[in-house]
Amino acid sequence: MNPSALEALIEALRCLPGIGPKSAQRIAYHLLQRDRKGAQRLGDSLLHALSSIRHCQRCNTFSENDICERCASPRRDQALLCIVETPVDMNMMEQTLAYQGLYYVLMGRISPLDGVGPRELGLEQLLARVLDGVVSEVILATNYTNEGEATAHYLTAMLRPKGINVTRIARGVPVGGELEYVDSGTLAQALRERKSFQG
Amino acid sequence: MNPSALEALIEALRCLPGIGPKSAQRIAYHLLQRDRKGAQRLGDSLLHALSSIRHCQRCNTFSENDICERCASPRRDQALLCIVETPVDMNMMEQTLAYQGLYYVLMGRISPLDGVGPRELGLEQLLARVLDGVVSEVILATNYTNEGEATAHYLTAMLRPKGINVTRIARGVPVGGELEYVDSGTLAQALRERKSFQG
Repeated sequence: MNPSALEALIEALRCLPGIGPKSAQRIAYHLLQRDRKGAQRLGDSLLHALSSIRHCQRCNTFSENDICERCASPRRDQALLCIVETPVDMNMMEQTLAYQGLYYVLMGRISPLDGVGPRELGLEQLLARVLDGVVSEVILATNYTNEGEATAHYLTAMLRPKGINVTRIARGVPVGGELEYVDSGTLAQALRERKSFQG
Repeated sequence: MNPSALEALIEALRCLPGIGPKSAQRIAYHLLQRDRKGAQRLGDSLLHALSSIRHCQRCNTFSENDICERCASPRRDQALLCIVETPVDMNMMEQTLAYQGLYYVLMGRISPLDGVGPRELGLEQLLARVLDGVVSEVILATNYTNEGEATAHYLTAMLRPKGINVTRIARGVPVGGELEYVDSGTLAQALRERKSFQG
């Protein structure tokens, strides 16, 4: 019953994660009736982003240039490479102000349930990046979820035989954390990975 | 930290109802990483819909033509005008196959809390439509919510002095409904609006 351009819009809105047919229709009506300016801006910026955003050839994050600003910076320690799952994780690492090396963004994680294996992640590109002759340590900063852990194990098995020093960010009680409120899995790991105390 | 085209997309996605900054970022990453085809289709169909969808000059619903197909149809009873809140409500009425008249779509309802009064609804256009000399009965099919009821009352006060026969769709126990499961407000109304029984 809807005009065809409206039907096409409703159908296209379903590419958004978590949007079903009813929500798509509601959103389409909302945009056409109440926010045409916003819809125009969204349409324009979608097409602009698609044509201008690609992946940095060194770190694989989203970039408008072949090499992103961070990878091109001479002030970064070229011998350190931190592997994260997403650009958001990279931003979190940057906000610590505790890391001056470079990054590699996997843009995902190994997750067999979602059909993402080593091949889908494009790990050959990572391997080529690591074996550039300058990187001496790879820091695995994938999440401490099942998928993140599986990814860390896979990457270790892939990189260590090549003579690369592979490390993993520490796991334990959060700073400011109270034992009473820390889950027992974290506490057990913190106990197992206890360190000699510099008192 | 994101490239500017990506930041612009994240900002633009926030025009979607219920999408905050975190969700917008997640959606932008998803589209650029996993569904570029869907994003392209969405961008194209947004711009196409914006340029081709307007309001039918007679019934105010979304249409690609000045007058929509339904209003242009000679098989419709021109003397009956059913007023609904949204195009979805119009489709629901059509699905009953019990109505052969025409429609007027308010594209909203009177809702002071949302800042929608009679002026924002553009009721002058409705008034001009009703007073075309052909319409003899206006059927109010706004929802039985507070806002829908307020709208119905306002429209009645506006149209009845013009000599228009204004009716309202019936309220009562749903077909197939059991008294045990009907809310008491509906049951009280059904009792108050009881009719002589054609047994």
